[in-house]
Amino acid sequence: MAASESTSSIKALLFDVFGTVVDWRTSLIADFTAWANKAGKRGDWTALVDAWRGAYVPSMDDVRKHPERGYKNLDALHRASLERLVRELKIEGLDADDLAYLTTGWHRLSPWPDSVEGLTRLKRKFIISPLSNGNVALLTNMAKAAGLPWDLILSAEIFQHYKPDRETYLGAAGLLGLAPEEVMLVAAHNSDLAAAQRFGLATCFVPRPTEYGPLQSRDLAAEGDWTLVIRDLNDLADRLGC
Amino acid sequence: MAASESTSSIKALLFDVFGTVVDWRTSLIADFTAWANKAGKRGDWTALVDAWRGAYVPSMDDVRKHPERGYKNLDALHRASLERLVRELKIEGLDADDLAYLTTGWHRLSPWPDSVEGLTRLKRKFIISPLSNGNVALLTNMAKAAGLPWDLILSAEIFQHYKPDRETYLGAAGLLGLAPEEVMLVAAHNSDLAAAQRFGLATCFVPRPTEYGPLQSRDLAAEGDWTLVIRDLNDLADRLGC
Repeated sequence: MAASESTSSIKALLFDVFGTVVDWRTSLIADFTAWANKAGKRGDWTALVDAWRGAYVPSMDDVRKHPERGYKNLDALHRASLERLVRELKIEGLDADDLAYLTTGWHRLSPWPDSVEGLTRLKRKFIISPLSNGNVALLTNMAKAAGLPWDLILSAEIFQHYKPDRETYLGAAGLLGLAPEEVMLVAAHNSDLAAAQRFGLATCFVPRPTEYGPLQSRDLAAEGDWTLVIRDLNDLADRLGC
Repeated sequence: MAASESTSSIKALLFDVFGTVVDWRTSLIADFTAWANKAGKRGDWTALVDAWRGAYVPSMDDVRKHPERGYKNLDALHRASLERLVRELKIEGLDADDLAYLTTGWHRLSPWPDSVEGLTRLKRKFIISPLSNGNVALLTNMAKAAGLPWDLILSAEIFQHYKPDRETYLGAAGLLGLAPEEVMLVAAHNSDLAAAQRFGLATCFVPRPTEYGPLQSRDLAAEGDWTLVIRDLNDLADRLGC
């Protein structure tokens, strides 16, 4: 089916953020290295960033498995993982302000080169929003710093459910007053798209083959029957006539 | 206290919307009159609009008094009030599409002349968001149509509590990761500001003396000890150095 047929009912585009819109790994390593040089701190920042991202899915799974403990937003999960990792990686001499600086590094991530231009074009014709596991403050601060022109901020925090829970995808469509098939999720991760498709959303895969660094082995190509497969967000704007 | 002292800790500006940012009465009367002329419908649209807004606070009070019935968003309340009012005002010949058109009139409201320029200036230095009883889809569609440059959309619907419930004001500060005193509510209604002040937010009154039409008798001036009293949103941008 041509894009024009399969996407003619789409009214809103929701974007995964970490890896899809912003380059978290390069951003954090550069940010922490520059900060450490200036602040006189020593540590293997690449190892920290990779281990920190490795703790991401398990930390959300923990929230999902223990609803009785209440929802914890991503800033809180990042902070808890960081405190464990600095001990494990023997990064010493970090006070509370330092830990806060590192944690809010996730608020200061840089976009991929096509993100701002692509989103700006797509916004002319569609409602554009993140649909991210990042919390509202994180996504808001990131958008201000990086110039991401969202119409609104939709976050797992609003639904008190992390992706891939159904409440997040269907809650987003519901708040927009749209049917699931009027909403398309754009993501660099096949697993996120598989969940969106299961709940009736349209799906769009964008490859980000260096998200996890030069040795990335996952999500190099589309692995499902997605509505669209694009090169980058400018290509998506071209395909959707923006 | 000078504005620079009392507002130096403010990081986010939240705006009441109906009456404060957009001119609902003039917009709806003009919209419905033009539509009726074209569609061949007859009715007293001024009477409808005034009665409809009159039903606003009671309809939200009803949600507050009956939590066992579940939260209903403002589109749903507007639709229920409309169905009653067209009977009372003997407006005949409206089908389901007509009722939907009228209800989404609240998504198509025009801003006051200073709103877009003032918000655009304020956005350079502050997080700007609505904090409205309007639902998320209503506020999102309104922003797209009117060019309101919000950073994000905060709505009573997200908190499942209408203003002036504390959950709405403190929920907004919480999602932004800010203390109440780092957030200022801007509103044309003294009662909204009184609630915001009670829960620790900074407050800013903007007079909109024709919101309710030429015979308006309420909210013509500040009636509390608000943090700021401004002329319009451009004046606020001046006062805050934007």
